[in-house]
Amino acid sequence: MNKVLGIIAEYNPFHKGHLHHLQKAKQLVEPDYTIAVMSGNFTQRGEPAIIDKWARTQMALKNGIDLVIELPALYASQTAELFSAGAIQLLHMTGLVTHIAFGSEHNNLDELDMAARVLAEEPAEYRVLLRSYLNKGLSYPFARMRAMQEYFSCANWVKTISSELIESIFRGSNSILALEYLKALKRLESPIKPVIIPRLGASYNSPSLEGEFSSATAIRSAILSGKSWDSVAATLPIPSLEILKETISKGWGPVSIHSFDQMLLGLLRRSSTEEISNWMDVEEGLENRIKKHALESVNIEDFLNKVKTKRYTYTRFQRILIHALLGIKTQDISYYQEKGGPRYLRILGFNTRSIPLLSCLKKRAGLPIITKPSHYYRYGDKDLCTMFQYDVLAGDLYALALPNPENRMGGREFNQGLVMIQS
Amino acid sequence: MNKVLGIIAEYNPFHKGHLHHLQKAKQLVEPDYTIAVMSGNFTQRGEPAIIDKWARTQMALKNGIDLVIELPALYASQTAELFSAGAIQLLHMTGLVTHIAFGSEHNNLDELDMAARVLAEEPAEYRVLLRSYLNKGLSYPFARMRAMQEYFSCANWVKTISSELIESIFRGSNSILALEYLKALKRLESPIKPVIIPRLGASYNSPSLEGEFSSATAIRSAILSGKSWDSVAATLPIPSLEILKETISKGWGPVSIHSFDQMLLGLLRRSSTEEISNWMDVEEGLENRIKKHALESVNIEDFLNKVKTKRYTYTRFQRILIHALLGIKTQDISYYQEKGGPRYLRILGFNTRSIPLLSCLKKRAGLPIITKPSHYYRYGDKDLCTMFQYDVLAGDLYALALPNPENRMGGREFNQGLVMIQS
Repeated sequence: MNKVLGIIAEYNPFHKGHLHHLQKAKQLVEPDYTIAVMSGNFTQRGEPAIIDKWARTQMALKNGIDLVIELPALYASQTAELFSAGAIQLLHMTGLVTHIAFGSEHNNLDELDMAARVLAEEPAEYRVLLRSYLNKGLSYPFARMRAMQEYFSCANWVKTISSELIESIFRGSNSILALEYLKALKRLESPIKPVIIPRLGASYNSPSLEGEFSSATAIRSAILSGKSWDSVAATLPIPSLEILKETISKGWGPVSIHSFDQMLLGLLRRSSTEEISNWMDVEEGLENRIKKHALESVNIEDFLNKVKTKRYTYTRFQRILIHALLGIKTQDISYYQEKGGPRYLRILGFNTRSIPLLSCLKKRAGLPIITKPSHYYRYGDKDLCTMFQYDVLAGDLYALALPNPENRMGGREFNQGLVMIQS
Repeated sequence: MNKVLGIIAEYNPFHKGHLHHLQKAKQLVEPDYTIAVMSGNFTQRGEPAIIDKWARTQMALKNGIDLVIELPALYASQTAELFSAGAIQLLHMTGLVTHIAFGSEHNNLDELDMAARVLAEEPAEYRVLLRSYLNKGLSYPFARMRAMQEYFSCANWVKTISSELIESIFRGSNSILALEYLKALKRLESPIKPVIIPRLGASYNSPSLEGEFSSATAIRSAILSGKSWDSVAATLPIPSLEILKETISKGWGPVSIHSFDQMLLGLLRRSSTEEISNWMDVEEGLENRIKKHALESVNIEDFLNKVKTKRYTYTRFQRILIHALLGIKTQDISYYQEKGGPRYLRILGFNTRSIPLLSCLKKRAGLPIITKPSHYYRYGDKDLCTMFQYDVLAGDLYALALPNPENRMGGREFNQGLVMIQS
C-alpha cells in the first residue's frame, strides 16, 4: 500500500461539491485508499447534522470513501483550531495516511504554509503583537490577522507575504481551516503531505440553491423547509439523494437546531449563571447575557439572534449550546490536548474493498480502534471511556430530536453495527 | 370579620365537584370570606397543570373563592404529607382562617382525628411497630396502616378504632389527605377548625366522564385527547368552561406531562446516576433504574410505565421528574420544614369584595405577603428568595411546554399582574 488519502469532512449531506473535491483529490494523489474523518451527530458550526452519522457514513462510502472514522463529539463542535487539531491528529494516528486534501479559497500552498508556520511556532515577536491587538479589544481572528501582517512586514525572512495576501487568506473560511490543518501537521511533525484542491466558483458558498454546486447550507435549508426533492436533486449525487429520501421517509430526519428548542431552552433556563460560566467558550460576563436572553426568547433561533454581538458570533453561541448539551468544559478539552488529542479511532463504516486497509490499520494505528462500541470500556483506558461517553450522549440526545417519536430510544451507539458497503 | 373559610385545592380545572364542595362548605361554615391555597403550575401528582395558575385563579375567583394563595412549587409536587403540611402552614399563617373544609371518603371526624393524633404525636410504641413493618419490606403507606392497626389493638385508649375502620380510612386518597391536614393542624397547635364535606358518589373518582360530577382526571383526559367541548361542558361551571376555551384557543394550554417529553428525557439522559441520586425521593438504587429506562423509552409516559414497580409507583416517579426539573433535593425541603414551612404568602388573585380581607391579612399575617413578585428580593430574606425562585423557574419551564410557540417567553412571573375579578 503506497498512498492513502485523508479527507476531513462533515458530509452534511454529501453533495456534488464533495464529490468534485474527492474526485480531484484522487486524480492528484492517486491513492490506494481514501479515509474520511467525519463529524458525528453534531457539526463544527454547533448544529445537529441533518441526518445521523450512520446515514452520512453510508453516503460517504457509496460516493467513493473507503473508510469513515468519527471525529469525537468533544472535538466536532469546536473552533476551526480545535476541530482541525482533532481531525489531523486522528489521520496522523492511523499510521497510514500519506496525503491529506482540502479545499481553500486561497490556493497557493507555499503562502499558506508560511502563514501556518507562524501560527504553529508562535515566535515571540508575533506573540507580543497578538497580545497587543487583543488588548486593544480586537476579536481573536482579527487580532491574529493584524499581528501576522505586522510580523511579516518586519520579519527578515527570505520570503515574505504582503498584508493584502494575508487579509485574503483570513477572509476565506476554508483557507482559515487550511491554515489550521497545516498548523496541526507542523505541530505533530507529521509526514502527511497536504494537497490543496482549488475551490469551485463563488456560488459554492451561497446560501441559496444555485445549480449543481450548491452549498450544504443551501441544501439543508431547502430540505428543512420542506421543498420538493426535485428542487435539490440536481445538487446531490444519486446515492446521497436515495439515502436522504429513505432516512427522512422513516422519520430519522431531518434534524435542525430547531428540533432541540425545548431541550436547549429548558437547559438554559434551568442552569444558574455559575453553571453557565463553566461551559466551554463562555467568557466572563457572557453567562448573564445568555441567562437573560434564554428567558426573553421563544425558541433557539430567536435566542441566537438576540444573544449574538459583533464580537461573539451566532456560530460561537451555537457551539456553546452544544457544549452545554454535552456538558463540555474548557478544562475537558485542554486535558485531552495535553495528552495528544483524540484517544481512539472510532470506525463508523467501510466498504468491502478496503478490508486490506483495515487489517493494515490494526497493525499500524497509534490509538485503540473501536469497531464494537459496546466493548469500549474493555481497553481499561479511563480517558478513552470519558471521551467516548460524549459520543454516546450525543447520540442519546440527538435521538430525542428525531421527527418520528418511535425512533427516540437511546443507546443506538451500542445497537447499530458498522456500516458496510459492498464494492 | 368573624369567620374565614380555608380550602386546599388544585382546581385543575375547577369543575362541578369543586363547586359542590365549596357551596356545602359555605353552607356549613357561613364564612365572611373564603381563601383557597392552590398549587401553581405543577400539581401534587407530579404533573403540569392543564392550564396555568393565573387562568385557574380566575376560575376559582369566578366560582366563589375570594382570595387565592399559591402553594409554593417546592411543596406542590410532594407526597400527601408534605403537600398538606405546606398548605396548612400557609392557611394558619394568614392569621385569619378560622375553618378549613375538606372532602374525605371516610367522614367521621372523630375517628379521623384519633388516627391523625397517632400520626402527629408518633408515640414510641407506634414508632417501633412502624419500623418493624418497614423492615419487613412493606411500603410506607402500608406499613403505616399496619402499625396503626396494631397500635390501636393494644392501646389502652378510652376509645379505639377497629382494624377495618383504619383500613377503610387508608383506602381513600382523600381521607389520607384529610389525615394529613388534621395531623398538620395538630402539629401547629392551630385553632383552625376542620370541617368534613361528605364526598359525592363513587363516580366522582372515575377515570371516565360520567355525567355532571366527573373527576378532574377524566375532564383533563377528555380535553387533552381533543374531545369536543360539548362532551365536557356538563361537568364544568360556566365560568370554568369559558376560561378553558379562551385559554386553549390562544395556545396557552392544554399542557400535559407529554408536553415535557423532550425536556425531561433530555434531562434524564444528560444526568449522571450520581446527580439523579440527589433528587428528592430517589432512594438508593433507583438512580440506576431511572437511568436505564430513560434510555429505553421513547417518551415520558413510556418511561413511567417502564420504571414503576409495585413498591415505587407511577406517581412517585412522576414527582421525581418534577423534582429533577426544578432541582429539588431532599435537604431543600427538610431545611424549610425545620424553619416552619413556606416563607411567604404569594397572592395570585382576589375578587373586589375581598378588599377588606386583604387589608386584614396585611395586619395579621405571620409571613411576608407577595403581591408584586418583582419586589420579592426586597424583603432581604434569603430563604424567601430561594423558595420563590422555584416558583419562577416552574413558570419559565412551564412556558416551554405551551402549544403556541409564541407564548414560550419566560419571566411571566414578573410581568403578569394579580388576577382581579369584579364582584
